[in-house]
Amino acid sequence: MKKIRVAVVGYGNIGHYTLDTLQVTPDMEVAGIVRRHVAEGEDTVKGCPVVSDIRRLKDVDVAILATPTRSCLEYAKQILPLGINTVDSFDIHTSILDYRRRLMALNKKTNTVSVISAGWDPGSDSVVRTLFQALAPKGLTYTNFGPGMSMGHTVCVKSKKGVRDALSLTIPKGESLHRRMVYVELEEGADLAEVTRLIKEDPYFASDETYVNAVKSIDEIKDMGHGVNLVRKGVSGVTQNQLLEFNMRINNPALTAQVLVNLARASMCQQPGCYTMIEIPVIDMLPGNREDIIGAMV
Amino acid sequence: MKKIRVAVVGYGNIGHYTLDTLQVTPDMEVAGIVRRHVAEGEDTVKGCPVVSDIRRLKDVDVAILATPTRSCLEYAKQILPLGINTVDSFDIHTSILDYRRRLMALNKKTNTVSVISAGWDPGSDSVVRTLFQALAPKGLTYTNFGPGMSMGHTVCVKSKKGVRDALSLTIPKGESLHRRMVYVELEEGADLAEVTRLIKEDPYFASDETYVNAVKSIDEIKDMGHGVNLVRKGVSGVTQNQLLEFNMRINNPALTAQVLVNLARASMCQQPGCYTMIEIPVIDMLPGNREDIIGAMV
Repeated sequence: MKKIRVAVVGYGNIGHYTLDTLQVTPDMEVAGIVRRHVAEGEDTVKGCPVVSDIRRLKDVDVAILATPTRSCLEYAKQILPLGINTVDSFDIHTSILDYRRRLMALNKKTNTVSVISAGWDPGSDSVVRTLFQALAPKGLTYTNFGPGMSMGHTVCVKSKKGVRDALSLTIPKGESLHRRMVYVELEEGADLAEVTRLIKEDPYFASDETYVNAVKSIDEIKDMGHGVNLVRKGVSGVTQNQLLEFNMRINNPALTAQVLVNLARASMCQQPGCYTMIEIPVIDMLPGNREDIIGAMV
Repeated sequence: MKKIRVAVVGYGNIGHYTLDTLQVTPDMEVAGIVRRHVAEGEDTVKGCPVVSDIRRLKDVDVAILATPTRSCLEYAKQILPLGINTVDSFDIHTSILDYRRRLMALNKKTNTVSVISAGWDPGSDSVVRTLFQALAPKGLTYTNFGPGMSMGHTVCVKSKKGVRDALSLTIPKGESLHRRMVYVELEEGADLAEVTRLIKEDPYFASDETYVNAVKSIDEIKDMGHGVNLVRKGVSGVTQNQLLEFNMRINNPALTAQVLVNLARASMCQQPGCYTMIEIPVIDMLPGNREDIIGAMV
């Protein structure tokens, strides 16, 4: 059977894990890696070609955008007109609908499929939230993250003046409330009180209880494990007190990469258009024969 | 907006809960109830018409088959040619593929949709199992049921000679192993040892640790709460030890009824064919505008 040929666009943290995952995925083949700048002598990584323009790769079926969220639209605009599907983990919850509309128009025009916001939250958590809502339509769902490192919050802290390196931990307080434990490696002469002020006034942290601590080495305390606890107590029909819970303890970038790879596969069997994960049957994420999957999973 | 008109076929335990659920579901309307025998003066229930032939109900979009699993095929064969979709909770895991093939042919011929095995296991648990498999493709998933009353096992015990009433509880031992705690109300003169022998040799119980106890009243100990614990430890890409868990404590028939109602809705937006729940996007189970759902759930 013909393998699905996948390009990895961006080669940061998620890009690394995506390449590793593709290389152990039997129904897929790495077409290559796309980076903005290809340094001298770095035109292959783990046996895969590295290029600065996706058009230099052969027969790409799907491009996994392992880029920052804010670059996703720009890359999709370049790649979809080539007839290549895209998958990304766009994670600004409030902009997803707008992003979906823009890509939808482009997908219909170019006869391609995009799967957006494919990670764990948004992503697999969204699937669980939707399932919980369906199982008990009245009630409240709480998404409790952590304890674990928040990529977005960490990047935010790193951008502050006086910060050399940083780590922002998300601690669940319950009922979807979180405490932020921030660790910073300060630059020479930087003032912890001033750095703390800059962090606390940032919209990323403004509404959460936040503590900032100076440490000698971020590298020594860095752990990319993360987790989530999703709970719903609700009503099925007229029956109260239906209790649903989902727990996960995971390596964060490894799970995100696995989800991206799954949805690259799923993109191959959807009608042209733009999809979030809740719009795609879970069976389409798995490799292999449909009846075999039904026999094993249902 | 036009409401989806639903008929409830069968009016046992699940049928009762399904009717209650439909009556609080804003986008649906009860077309009526179909029973084999309609007793004198019982031609309405909770304001809904009760008939013995579905053709006497007006404009039915979907029929929910709240019948024993073994009657599902027979009812589907009668109902699909009328252009009415069907939803059932067919629960013989080993026969699902065969049942799906038979209905598939009929659905294509009659331009209808059937959703089969829509309950919690098979059903929502199948969706969770598939999602877990996708998130960590290598590893083991364990489905641990209970503690709670097993409908199938209880019906089996009730069928044994000497048993007036029964209750079979499923107790999770972990790693998908279960102990069966069976309670029986014996008929006059029945012998507990003989009843125990009959139960233990039945294929329903033969491979599980089983205890049979005589009680004075089944009614006094009956509790229809149930639960499940689904766990997977697996590998995402090349990263070991990814831990996933799903827990549920629920009223069993209430949840089954809610799932049947959700999939009746979902049946209205699928192409003709026969589907298990893992083949249907979770978003299709919810009422309302697609973008609103994405905005709230993703």
